[in-house]
Order: sequence, then structure tokens, then C-alpha cells
Amino acid sequence: MSRSSTHHISPKRSDAERNRAQILKAARAAFADPDADVSMAEIARQAGVGSATLYRNFANRRDLLEALYVGEIDAVCEAAKTIEGTGPAAVLEAWLRRFYTYFTSKQLVATELLASSGPDAPVFGAGYSRVVSAGQPLLEAARESRQIQGDLTIEQILDMVVAIAKIPGDDDYRAPILQAALEAIRKPTAA
Amino acid sequence: MSRSSTHHISPKRSDAERNRAQILKAARAAFADPDADVSMAEIARQAGVGSATLYRNFANRRDLLEALYVGEIDAVCEAAKTIEGTGPAAVLEAWLRRFYTYFTSKQLVATELLASSGPDAPVFGAGYSRVVSAGQPLLEAARESRQIQGDLTIEQILDMVVAIAKIPGDDDYRAPILQAALEAIRKPTAA
Repeated sequence: MSRSSTHHISPKRSDAERNRAQILKAARAAFADPDADVSMAEIARQAGVGSATLYRNFANRRDLLEALYVGEIDAVCEAAKTIEGTGPAAVLEAWLRRFYTYFTSKQLVATELLASSGPDAPVFGAGYSRVVSAGQPLLEAARESRQIQGDLTIEQILDMVVAIAKIPGDDDYRAPILQAALEAIRKPTAA
Repeated sequence: MSRSSTHHISPKRSDAERNRAQILKAARAAFADPDADVSMAEIARQAGVGSATLYRNFANRRDLLEALYVGEIDAVCEAAKTIEGTGPAAVLEAWLRRFYTYFTSKQLVATELLASSGPDAPVFGAGYSRVVSAGQPLLEAARESRQIQGDLTIEQILDMVVAIAKIPGDDDYRAPILQAALEAIRKPTAA
């Protein structure tokens, strides 16, 4: 009856949300651990929910994987708003490193989703668009403050970071390449 | 009988060498033309040799592909000795661009060889080692003349160039990324 009734959260709804959050948390932990069992049954067990509750939230494994992937993209986009640095170019660089870390960390979720949905699945295109939109203001701020050289677009910069993230070898080998690439877009500070 | 006898090239040997060269030339031209017929029969026809001569030189298609691939690597390595530039850093950069051009040009030969021989075929490892060896002196010269910043190895620089060459999109999109990466390793000249 009251105007706030649409915002009213019933105890039941709250339970449902908590269940969903627990499932995602358990699934994230499982996928982050290379030795973990990432079966649906084990994820339900770790989340402390029954199989029926799991499948009411995620009709199949791919739905769960998509939700995890979207959550990872959410975190990268959220970082664009919260990440800190001494000036706009440092903020951009810190965020690009955050994106690189996402891309070089064990990408079991994205890899399995890619295998089951294919590279043209809408979820990937949407994820890419959101990362581009999140990075765009950081690049603009750095460019406006004249701390950036060249005129690469955020798409070109992100593609360069992804390309470096994909170079075979360990991170000790790749990190200096990323470092060089990030220095390339930053204007050298006067000595 | 004379000491030079081992260097003596008989007319017959000379014919054989000419045939081989003509086959390779015809095959190179065929693989460079996206509309060309690259069948063994058509390559023999274009080279003006019979099928028996073709197969005496290259027992099968893969042997021919390997010879073409080795020839491409030869050209990249040879360029390291002949390419010009205003100073060691410019020479290194020009050669890296030459390598990039090889990598972004229609790589029908390498692609077909990869499909038939697999990525672990010795021919690829040998090719990579030769390119590394060819580039090493150019990087050392540029570093000795203090025109290079950072301490990337030639392997890291080549991997960066390859990673950029593999970025999807057309060359207008990729070229500025390569430009930025090459500038990253070159020490900024004093203004």
C-alpha cells in the first residue's frame, strides 16, 4: 500500500539472495583453486545449499559460468572508479595493470565459457564493450592532463595489453614487456 | 684431381639447381597470390618443369613448404645484415619492422606448414633461433650506443612484435600500436 512497498524485501527474497551470493562465492573459490573440484554438486556442497536451490539459481553450468564471468568484468570496471594513483596517467596505468592481472590469472571461467559458448557469444562482446567504456574516461583524463603521448585509442591500448598477456612464458618474462608498453603511452617526465 | 674439383659445378648440377630455383620462385609467387592455384601440379606448370622433376626436388608438399618457410626466415636474417638506418637504434627498428611485415603478410606458407607439421616441428624452433641470433647483434649495437632504454632481451622484443602482429584488425589499427611499442624501447632523444 505504501509507496515503499516495491522496495520491500521479504525475508524469503533475502534468503534467495543470500543463497545466490553463497553459490557464487563458493564457485569463485573453486575456480580459483587449480586443485578444487568444480562440479556443480561440489559447488552446492561448498555453498551449503541443496542441489535444487543451486539449479533454481543457475539452470545449468553455463549459466553459472556466465554469472562468474560477468562478476569478473564487473570487478575490472569497478576498479576503474576506485583505483588510485598519483595523477591521471598513474591511475590509467594502475587500471591497465589490474586488467592485465585479470587476463593473466588462471582464467578457468573464461576458458570453459569460451569452450562451451564460442568466442562470438554475446556475453564476451558485452564484456569487452563494458571494459572499453570503463577505461575510456581514464584515458581521456590522462590525455587532458597532457600526461599521455601518441593517440592510441583505449581499444588499441587494451588490445596491446591483451596481446602481451597472451605471450607464452612466465610472468617474470612478460612483466618487463608490459612495463615497456605502458611506458610507451606515458609521456616521459622531464628529468 | 685438382683441389678445386669439389667446387666444380657440372652442367647437369647447374640444370638441377636452376630447376629447384624455378620451382621455389613459382611456389613463392603462387603462395603470395591469394587467388592462385597452389597445387603441386600448377606449381610445376608455372615453374616450367615436369612433375617428375618437381618430386625429385621436393618429395612432397610439406618438403616444398619447409623450403619456402626456410627461405622466408633466410630473408629476415639477411635483412639484419643489410638493412639501413641513421644509427644503431634506427637499424634495429627498421629490422623489427621488416620482421613485423613478414609476420603480418599473408602467411599461407607458415599457416599450412603449421597445420601439417604442428607447432613443435623442429623447423619452427630452428627458424625462431635463427631470427633471435640475427637480431641479437642489432640490439647489442643499439644498447652499446646508448640509444635504447630498458633491458628487454631480443626474445622479449621479438615476442612483443609478434604479439602486436597477431592483434585482430587491419594494419591501420595495428600500426600505431607497433609504433608505440618501438618507441618504448628507444631512448627519447633530447628535445
